[in-house]
Amino acid sequence: MPLGTDYAGQTCSLARTLEVVGERWTLLIVRDLFFGVRRFSDLQRHLDIPRAVLSARLSALVEADIVESGPYRLTERGEELWPAVHALMQWGERHQSPGGPRRVFAHTECGSDLDAGGRCPACGFAPRADALVMRPGPGATAPLRDDAVTLALREPRRLLEPLL
Amino acid sequence: MPLGTDYAGQTCSLARTLEVVGERWTLLIVRDLFFGVRRFSDLQRHLDIPRAVLSARLSALVEADIVESGPYRLTERGEELWPAVHALMQWGERHQSPGGPRRVFAHTECGSDLDAGGRCPACGFAPRADALVMRPGPGATAPLRDDAVTLALREPRRLLEPLL
Repeated sequence: MPLGTDYAGQTCSLARTLEVVGERWTLLIVRDLFFGVRRFSDLQRHLDIPRAVLSARLSALVEADIVESGPYRLTERGEELWPAVHALMQWGERHQSPGGPRRVFAHTECGSDLDAGGRCPACGFAPRADALVMRPGPGATAPLRDDAVTLALREPRRLLEPLL
Repeated sequence: MPLGTDYAGQTCSLARTLEVVGERWTLLIVRDLFFGVRRFSDLQRHLDIPRAVLSARLSALVEADIVESGPYRLTERGEELWPAVHALMQWGERHQSPGGPRRVFAHTECGSDLDAGGRCPACGFAPRADALVMRPGPGATAPLRDDAVTLALREPRRLLEPLL
């Protein structure tokens, strides 16, 4: 089912992707699911968005088979958004984070930090999200919030493992 | 200058990136600039969006030092969005294009098609956008539009070279 017709005149696969994940907040919700957030209330407090907006975005993600509900988690199709989420994040790390990366991702199996392209330099491939541990980097600033998700993310966390 | 405060409570680099390129249509404009579109009128006809929206998005991109104006082209910072644009496109190719990829990217130097991660399998690295040639793939459908950009993109094109 199409989620929007805003890009209806565009046959490009980028437009198709953005129809599904291009709404405001959607990719930040997907990010939080990669970080292991599972509950509506935790998503709502961490993102600090109106409940109605969060509810609408989650429904659209479930409809698009990117998220399963109760508790929320990414489907296989959803997990395959990892390279795009990582690439968008890396651009921000490079250009919008003068103190260095805010988050660092390491390949669990060998312990090496990923390069900017999402590859493990030791193993020579781009690991799936569930094979990664995330930790705060040198650019991590004091958190602006003190909700449980924000506090939990100050420690190293394996991606996709339930956070709370 | 901050382009939006919608994600003001978020210290993540993904939020920072989305503040700059997360507005509706912005990434499709960036995509068209990768494809070599240079003129406002060509962008407007190809994207089929209101002039005021295109004008606002381009102004924000110029302000964010992602685009230079007159004629429009990506800055170095803008060109570094390529891995993110490619990754988002690849997700759509995989999940939203049942007939196969709509667009195929090859490394100009060796002629090899990129893999889904944006790497040249022969050379072992991810080429910059200006080293790529794009051509229609097996999933390319009959174009919905007949503007000059749409027609020009039916032929193989080197990315970032002026299209018209």
